[in-house]
Amino acid sequence: MLVEKPIGVIDSGVGGLTVVSELIRQLPKEEIIYIGDTDRCPYGPRPVEEVRKYTWEMIDYLLKHEIKMLVIACNTATAVVLEEAKERLSIPVIGVIHPGTIAALKVTQNDHVGVIGTEGTINSGAYFRELTKISSNVKVESLACPALVPLVEKGMFSGEEAKRIIEASLRPILQTPIDSLILGCTHYPLLAPVIQEIAGEGIEIISSGDETAREVSALLYFENLLFTGERPEPNYLFYTTGPIDTFEKIARDWLSIDDITVKRTDLLSVIKEKGM
Amino acid sequence: MLVEKPIGVIDSGVGGLTVVSELIRQLPKEEIIYIGDTDRCPYGPRPVEEVRKYTWEMIDYLLKHEIKMLVIACNTATAVVLEEAKERLSIPVIGVIHPGTIAALKVTQNDHVGVIGTEGTINSGAYFRELTKISSNVKVESLACPALVPLVEKGMFSGEEAKRIIEASLRPILQTPIDSLILGCTHYPLLAPVIQEIAGEGIEIISSGDETAREVSALLYFENLLFTGERPEPNYLFYTTGPIDTFEKIARDWLSIDDITVKRTDLLSVIKEKGM
Repeated sequence: MLVEKPIGVIDSGVGGLTVVSELIRQLPKEEIIYIGDTDRCPYGPRPVEEVRKYTWEMIDYLLKHEIKMLVIACNTATAVVLEEAKERLSIPVIGVIHPGTIAALKVTQNDHVGVIGTEGTINSGAYFRELTKISSNVKVESLACPALVPLVEKGMFSGEEAKRIIEASLRPILQTPIDSLILGCTHYPLLAPVIQEIAGEGIEIISSGDETAREVSALLYFENLLFTGERPEPNYLFYTTGPIDTFEKIARDWLSIDDITVKRTDLLSVIKEKGM
Repeated sequence: MLVEKPIGVIDSGVGGLTVVSELIRQLPKEEIIYIGDTDRCPYGPRPVEEVRKYTWEMIDYLLKHEIKMLVIACNTATAVVLEEAKERLSIPVIGVIHPGTIAALKVTQNDHVGVIGTEGTINSGAYFRELTKISSNVKVESLACPALVPLVEKGMFSGEEAKRIIEASLRPILQTPIDSLILGCTHYPLLAPVIQEIAGEGIEIISSGDETAREVSALLYFENLLFTGERPEPNYLFYTTGPIDTFEKIARDWLSIDDITVKRTDLLSVIKEKGM
């Protein structure tokens, strides 16, 4: 039965684990299968065509496992591939951009929303486009923060140096009158406490991970795909294109669960079959 | 084009206007058509079969207008009719129960959630069922608060007497260790400031109206039904089975907009055609 199948999650690396962490918390009965393309991370600075190619390699790989829904847990990949994936796949597909935009439109009181993300995400204009599609009144401030992903990848979630770098990155956007700030990159939630401290209480921080997990729940329910039965313990299976041990360490740390399986894939099986 | 059609909203009376208010705020380009069965309100204490009959009368009435989505903005009607409406209608149908449950599962830190609602909603066990379907760990405290809807209908949103009545109603559930409280009735958001004051800062109040508007946005997006074009001013059309002037006054007050049209319907055209 499709309802028993796992939710498939793809990301350029480990950032999507912030989405997985919320999925496990908000949907504790669901099983998850994840691919992180750690070896080719980050996608942010890559040309659009490369992001498209890599993302489809992950999607094709996951489709070989039966999944009931696909979550593109990477903002850069969502901006490039979401629409075509929604069109081509027969299962529901969710990206991380729309959930953040509707959360922002819900919380903003002054219709002035900020977005930070990688160069790729910000240059794509996807957040601006989604926000203004829904509301003609909303004003949007966008800022690329290329220094933030490296901080997360080095495990520097707090401390004086992290704070200094984040403060310098955010300065331009904090001089605008925004009252809400979308973390438009799935790496950023790990830095959320420091970002909140720097931004101050007047700005509500919106994590695309939390919001995406909620949208997954809403859509599974709407499509009658929620697993509501009983099973011993749900399985969590992770693939990485990079070294297993690094990925495993980060996954255990971030997800606070021990029972995960991490395997390596080079995605080559897919590439070969497609004659690429 | 379906995408240009209004969102249909039904409620037993004026309570669903709290959902409309959020829809207008979160989806300012969308048009809305609403029926409030004010004449037969409240549905809460009525037998299930009566709630079913009345709710279908409203749905059939709205389907004569072309709508692109149906929102059942009444918890009692959602508990009785949502599943069959999802099955029978070709457009997406959303109730007010699921959005509140996923919001609660998102915010709760101690997996202990409270729900207040009418007798009908609480006795249906719908919130308990939805919450435990998604999470086996969650503990749920449910409490019927029949004194609260009359307060709202009398316009007593604050003041000493309102506070005394709300305090007495909530006392049993506030003695439990819940950290989140779902307002499981669309009338209650009008009392939210007082409820929050009584519940204290340790309990997060979840308004089903806000959360439903968000789910409407997510599903319109998923189904490619969001209106993203331009139009002068969206139309808001309201039907009531009761007196027009009372309904109009409340609608203008709650929605803070002047440009609304209120018409009376006895739903009889539908009843006649169906030979009921």
